[in-house]
Amino acid sequence: MEKRISGTTGLFCLVGSPVGHSGSPAMYNYSFQKQGLDYAYMAFDVKKEQMAAAMKTIKLFNIRGGNITMPCKNIAATLVDELSPAARIIGAINVFVNDNGKITGHITDGIGFVRNLKEHGIDVAGKKLVVIGAGGAATALQVQSALDGAKELSIFNRDDEFYARAEETVKKIQKEAPTVTANAFHLEDNDKLKEEIASADILVNATIIGMKPQDGQSLVDPSFLRKDLVVADTVYNPLKTKLILDAEKIGCRTAPGKGMLLWQGAAAYKLFVGKEMPAKEYQEYEQQQAKANK
Amino acid sequence: MEKRISGTTGLFCLVGSPVGHSGSPAMYNYSFQKQGLDYAYMAFDVKKEQMAAAMKTIKLFNIRGGNITMPCKNIAATLVDELSPAARIIGAINVFVNDNGKITGHITDGIGFVRNLKEHGIDVAGKKLVVIGAGGAATALQVQSALDGAKELSIFNRDDEFYARAEETVKKIQKEAPTVTANAFHLEDNDKLKEEIASADILVNATIIGMKPQDGQSLVDPSFLRKDLVVADTVYNPLKTKLILDAEKIGCRTAPGKGMLLWQGAAAYKLFVGKEMPAKEYQEYEQQQAKANK
Repeated sequence: MEKRISGTTGLFCLVGSPVGHSGSPAMYNYSFQKQGLDYAYMAFDVKKEQMAAAMKTIKLFNIRGGNITMPCKNIAATLVDELSPAARIIGAINVFVNDNGKITGHITDGIGFVRNLKEHGIDVAGKKLVVIGAGGAATALQVQSALDGAKELSIFNRDDEFYARAEETVKKIQKEAPTVTANAFHLEDNDKLKEEIASADILVNATIIGMKPQDGQSLVDPSFLRKDLVVADTVYNPLKTKLILDAEKIGCRTAPGKGMLLWQGAAAYKLFVGKEMPAKEYQEYEQQQAKANK
Repeated sequence: MEKRISGTTGLFCLVGSPVGHSGSPAMYNYSFQKQGLDYAYMAFDVKKEQMAAAMKTIKLFNIRGGNITMPCKNIAATLVDELSPAARIIGAINVFVNDNGKITGHITDGIGFVRNLKEHGIDVAGKKLVVIGAGGAATALQVQSALDGAKELSIFNRDDEFYARAEETVKKIQKEAPTVTANAFHLEDNDKLKEEIASADILVNATIIGMKPQDGQSLVDPSFLRKDLVVADTVYNPLKTKLILDAEKIGCRTAPGKGMLLWQGAAAYKLFVGKEMPAKEYQEYEQQQAKANK
């Protein structure tokens, strides 16, 4: 029989709302057990307005660390004792570490994006990226790509309330990584999108378009793609979005969102316990489970 | 592989200080798993002055229920929304149940004591008990025995700050169970102790005398014991106290503290999930584990 939770087992947690569907508890508990670490990971449904109380709970119960998800990522960044450089620039956290009552917030979404590209043989350094979207994941990967030496970033977003965030991200990048060329464009300008993709190395969808129940949709006309373009998506459900499928047809190298999810989690795990997460073992385990449940 | 914690797994917890040594997480997690219940049980170190904040946490994180241990049992009774009859009389709780934000406090120490006697073939109804001690466990088992129809209770305690609690318990029993004869005596009066034991059916040690590192000690002169006396102890470490060993030599029926611990836990489990705990299976599993670890 497996080792069970004892009186000394330390807790990690996910907070946000909803959290019931999250794959994080399964992934982290698998990893703790695989490495013989005396920790457990659980999810708690916490609304935005409860986040301050949740932070007190984390200190009171000495919760060792964990993840923050929607809609609490921005408010949580204002409640921790310290922020990582990327978290400070982005103004959001998806990870926290409790070091004997001192809480540090981190953001690993961008790290996961960059690592996922690397796992597919692509380095963002020196590259031009076209990124569609200006939400949380989009901002995180834009900032991280800039910090990791991307040459140029072209951010497209619809002319909606998020467009200001695209412009804000451009300003942040200009301030924090002044050697990077960053620009914001309206997604409605399809000619501009075509033009920017034509001169880009990497195209990224960081919107929810393509995600169930909006699968089968893509914001990019397949005629804008070419064989030597790398195409990435942040959407992981379905595993392959229409954009990824379009890119595969043309023969592009692709990096679907599932890998970004895995690697942002692995980066968090490293911050939690100081070890590499058994990410590939978990990926295989998960695939076996999925087959077994079919 | 066993089913692991997922995003929907509900948490139960132990709060108090210290908690690291507690056997409760192992016992409840075994039971949840055995019965295929999607719960986990963890321990959190909480001081008395943090108990009010802990109660807020329990509501915020929708912790489904749990146990309260020293030194938080009395303060916790003042913080819950409702109390069971025994918990109200005793003024302490060792169990709470969170019913969608409404917390009810219970005390199962006395229930565990009565059940442990029953498992040894002894019913407290109609019996005279001599109980040494006036602390939390002592009070709980005195009140529960009275509620369960004991004929007479003689409570002995040293003439220290706890003696007033023995007198208070006598008053409570006189009020709540007026058919029961209840008296408090000074433990220093050894002749009185001998006399009361002579007319008693059941003798109980509910002090820490006999517990490691005070094992090898007993408050009762072996010459006070006789073959048809039932002898119980609340101490479970060592499994057999000097009092229990003395009683065995004389041929008394004995009920060591380990069973009380198990059955108070089983009573809590029933309150948590509405099912009988697989107590005997766990007892066997625990014994196998203990052998394997030798």
